[in-house]
Amino acid sequence: MSERREMRDLVTLDRAREVVGDLDVGGGTERVPLGEASGRVLAERVDADLDVPGFDRASVDGYAVRAADTTGAGEASPVTLAVGGLVEAGERPEVTVEEGVAVEIATGAVVPPGANAVVMVEDTTEGEETVDIRRAVPPGGNVMAAGADIAAGDRALGAGVRLTPRTVGLLAAMGHETVTVRRLPRVAVVATGEELVQPGEELDHGRGQIYDVNTETIATGVREAGGEPVRYTRVPDDREAMADALREAAGECDMILTAGSTSASGADMLYSVVEEVGDLLVHGVALKPGKPTIIGRVDGTPYVGLPGYPVSALSVFRLLVAPRLRRAAGYGTERSVTATGRLAVDERFDEGRRRALPVGLVEDGDGETVVYPVDKGSGATTTLAAADGVVDMPADTRRLRAGEDVTVELFSPDARAPPVLAVGESDPAAVELLDAVDGARYLTDGDRAGRRWLRDGVADVAVLTGEVAGPEAEGSEVLAAWTREWGVVTAEGDPGDHPLESLAESGRSVATVNRDLGLRAAVDDAARESGLDPDALAGVETAGIESPARRVADGRADAGVALRATAERLGLPFAAVGVQSVSLVGNEGRLAKPGVGRLREETGSLPGLLSDLPGYAE
Amino acid sequence: MSERREMRDLVTLDRAREVVGDLDVGGGTERVPLGEASGRVLAERVDADLDVPGFDRASVDGYAVRAADTTGAGEASPVTLAVGGLVEAGERPEVTVEEGVAVEIATGAVVPPGANAVVMVEDTTEGEETVDIRRAVPPGGNVMAAGADIAAGDRALGAGVRLTPRTVGLLAAMGHETVTVRRLPRVAVVATGEELVQPGEELDHGRGQIYDVNTETIATGVREAGGEPVRYTRVPDDREAMADALREAAGECDMILTAGSTSASGADMLYSVVEEVGDLLVHGVALKPGKPTIIGRVDGTPYVGLPGYPVSALSVFRLLVAPRLRRAAGYGTERSVTATGRLAVDERFDEGRRRALPVGLVEDGDGETVVYPVDKGSGATTTLAAADGVVDMPADTRRLRAGEDVTVELFSPDARAPPVLAVGESDPAAVELLDAVDGARYLTDGDRAGRRWLRDGVADVAVLTGEVAGPEAEGSEVLAAWTREWGVVTAEGDPGDHPLESLAESGRSVATVNRDLGLRAAVDDAARESGLDPDALAGVETAGIESPARRVADGRADAGVALRATAERLGLPFAAVGVQSVSLVGNEGRLAKPGVGRLREETGSLPGLLSDLPGYAE
Repeated sequence: MSERREMRDLVTLDRAREVVGDLDVGGGTERVPLGEASGRVLAERVDADLDVPGFDRASVDGYAVRAADTTGAGEASPVTLAVGGLVEAGERPEVTVEEGVAVEIATGAVVPPGANAVVMVEDTTEGEETVDIRRAVPPGGNVMAAGADIAAGDRALGAGVRLTPRTVGLLAAMGHETVTVRRLPRVAVVATGEELVQPGEELDHGRGQIYDVNTETIATGVREAGGEPVRYTRVPDDREAMADALREAAGECDMILTAGSTSASGADMLYSVVEEVGDLLVHGVALKPGKPTIIGRVDGTPYVGLPGYPVSALSVFRLLVAPRLRRAAGYGTERSVTATGRLAVDERFDEGRRRALPVGLVEDGDGETVVYPVDKGSGATTTLAAADGVVDMPADTRRLRAGEDVTVELFSPDARAPPVLAVGESDPAAVELLDAVDGARYLTDGDRAGRRWLRDGVADVAVLTGEVAGPEAEGSEVLAAWTREWGVVTAEGDPGDHPLESLAESGRSVATVNRDLGLRAAVDDAARESGLDPDALAGVETAGIESPARRVADGRADAGVALRATAERLGLPFAAVGVQSVSLVGNEGRLAKPGVGRLREETGSLPGLLSDLPGYAE
Repeated sequence: MSERREMRDLVTLDRAREVVGDLDVGGGTERVPLGEASGRVLAERVDADLDVPGFDRASVDGYAVRAADTTGAGEASPVTLAVGGLVEAGERPEVTVEEGVAVEIATGAVVPPGANAVVMVEDTTEGEETVDIRRAVPPGGNVMAAGADIAAGDRALGAGVRLTPRTVGLLAAMGHETVTVRRLPRVAVVATGEELVQPGEELDHGRGQIYDVNTETIATGVREAGGEPVRYTRVPDDREAMADALREAAGECDMILTAGSTSASGADMLYSVVEEVGDLLVHGVALKPGKPTIIGRVDGTPYVGLPGYPVSALSVFRLLVAPRLRRAAGYGTERSVTATGRLAVDERFDEGRRRALPVGLVEDGDGETVVYPVDKGSGATTTLAAADGVVDMPADTRRLRAGEDVTVELFSPDARAPPVLAVGESDPAAVELLDAVDGARYLTDGDRAGRRWLRDGVADVAVLTGEVAGPEAEGSEVLAAWTREWGVVTAEGDPGDHPLESLAESGRSVATVNRDLGLRAAVDDAARESGLDPDALAGVETAGIESPARRVADGRADAGVALRATAERLGLPFAAVGVQSVSLVGNEGRLAKPGVGRLREETGSLPGLLSDLPGYAE
């Protein structure tokens, strides 16, 4: 790392928006079939070149007449006319309506010559070769005159209108099969980083490879904001390759987005590549997340360098890029969709940057919205997946208090609280129960998180291990309980008669779970009961209930702690150590929620479900 | 028409919704590439089958260290460590961090063996082969542990979740290239009517043909509600053909929609076809528009027969079908997007049916929303195209008063008031001026409508002919004015020295415009000045400024009134009769609106614009 540079002169989000707003995101026009036109923006004014309808059209089923012939007609004084024929829709009238004559006519049919009105069938009584008219009709009555919908020569739609099913209908009425719309801005999406592997390919964890998240999330965001994403993957992480990729993208697209390589370190040199091959306008925005953002131009093509962390990349995309794309696409400003809710917990913040706080929504028992922070860090895709929107915190906000009403900018108009929010220990039986509720959300952050979010009134239900006592027992109800057997797995051979002690054997690489998980408490308790030092047999701490067993299975550890259910599924030798109780605990105030009700119902299936899980019992 | 039947036992909208809600709209699942998954609904639970990240990952640029080595480090008391190598992202660490050693590390790189924390580069000072650590770091500091984002074996997403760019990101992080989603319900769209012609083909006005509007509008609506439209066009309007088409659609689709042929008359026999080949559940809903709606089943496949008028068809689709499709697609209830505004005019209603009143939006000078009814009748596509949403009026509402606040259910989340709403006479110069404002709306309903909507505070600007006086002159300002020459066109030969008189010649078929248009007032005034009876020379009254000339051009009339500009464009012999003044009149309270400002600016180009229009002058 030959060069380390700090970002200086951070600009505000508003200033960054101005700079992006001033960039020239070019476009063009294209012709699309009518069936694909909804949502697109009309590129040219459309004038009607025919009358719609093209003829005087009957608006109702009835009788075409000379209006004057019906003068004075009423319920008590019907006028009798001779029936002189029939005109169906789609048929050329073969008759002319003379004085004293009525011609039967269907809705949509051509009003025959001589007639100037239609009497509704409901106002007539059929006779033999005659009809009694029981209601007078004025000239033009129940007739849609030629051109009354839209007249030839009139302006029908102006340029810049975003097409809808309704305006598509107007274009269809005028006979248009295709329509000229603004071309979607082509947006290059370039994810950088030697460690990135495309989904579907093999990962090498040892080399620190991860799947490329940003290409798909940003490409999807581009599409939703009215652009056409063009993916550039596998750009090598060196200056020349990056410069070439940017120049190539500049030649092919209307805008370039990169994700990653934006910070000030030597390896992350995009800002200096842009300085070299284009104009660097901004490097650094006073925003959290999103500080290392770059704005510039490459060969005149607008360029925004998004940070590499998925949460940061998508947040900056949403705040800075999406509005500009919408404008370039001709969509106009988005009507921001917001929800108001009560913040569940205090949220403190002490950096002087504007902050987009990712939050989730949950409904309390009264149908009120509760808002809770979702933040496993900017590098975590689960932060994204579990959040429904963001709370915009100005740079000078130091604290939001629990109970305060906050406004959430929703990520999409149909973002909403899940039917059930479960938080707590990851457990296969709980997973199966939750499968009964479509769209249920389950934050498997461990027993501790379950207890905390239950106490704080966030979780509808918590999945807890061990005893349910203390503050989390108040105001809650155990909906179901079961036990799970746990023990030690080894890569080869029998874990032996003293499995727990074997974990402490020197030279063995051991995997356990971290202290957020209830399983770890069971392991530590068992160790103490056996007179062992829990720390002495901990080994590598992992985040998932199955992680230690998987490490054993793929050779990264010699032994580990696991549920019997996991060991049998992965086919690993297992020695039981203990049995732990697991409870599904409901917030009393949420029991009337339909999703929670559905979940309670499902607990009836627990016996069968447990019998399929090795080591599980009621 | 052998059989005429009235609809009996209309059901309420709520009851109709229940019936449609109970229909079984089947579905299935399909696998789609991740790039096409956003907006779709997950069909199966997705569990993580790898840790994300798959290794302990540096969260920042800096130095990988043993946390214990940094104990006590501070600005005033830096700890100096030997630099023992470098790990870049995507690289397998070649070093082990021993006591007293720090290894340079990039964000995203694998934390090398021996290290358990990373010191941020900002908290270090580089020396020669050493680094000063100016801040202590705890174990795990600035490290994202393996599985900390999502752990192998944990439930990642539940079935029934609607995918977003964010959840797509989570799936990408787990390496999914494709994902199993619910199949979009296939919805047959069958427009019936012998008079229908597909857009792009030739119309025969004499046979009363019109373009098929419903197929495209309903298909577009189906797509937006989460279904996949399957178009069945050219279904002949007879019992056997309809029965065959319904049975075919039932075999291929999850739901069938027809438009048209739903009323009780003999020609419209869909209800009886459904009675014969399936189950007729409902015929008639107490709704305006939308009374002749059919609900049933064909071979077990849900069927809804929409009325044939485009406004009615789309309105019933929106109220009855779209919510059911959204549910079948797994979208959940739509968050209805509404706008509140002040009703511009009284609206009376005296039928006892629930009514969906189509309305348009316009912004007043204070940014407040004004709501005005848009209703050229259910048969008019312009009713659809000019409306932004509907006001739901319960069956017992008799009247809404001007000035009352009403809630508008918007047709789409980005429906909004246009930058300029112009109402009035159709005029080529006004059209050109309005082209300067992207998305401007221009209701060419004639001089009378312009005056009315200007008075009522609906129009931002009105296009008026003749004198601007009376109530519409108060509170308004003439932004631009010009004159247009008008006269008589004939199919062949010179209209003669007395063109106006020639219109009254017996045996000639004459076309004029109707009395909504200002041009007609000029014609009638000129007739009276010449001592002629205006009615004697009127002939066929048409709705458009160009319609008479077009009738002359295509042989449907011998002579007609026209602007010189129209006559020259269509290449018709023209004899001038008079000159009419046209004014672009702005509502004084709206002059500060940006769109109106842009339009005023554009009036500067009027001289050049008029010189290109034959017969136009300032």
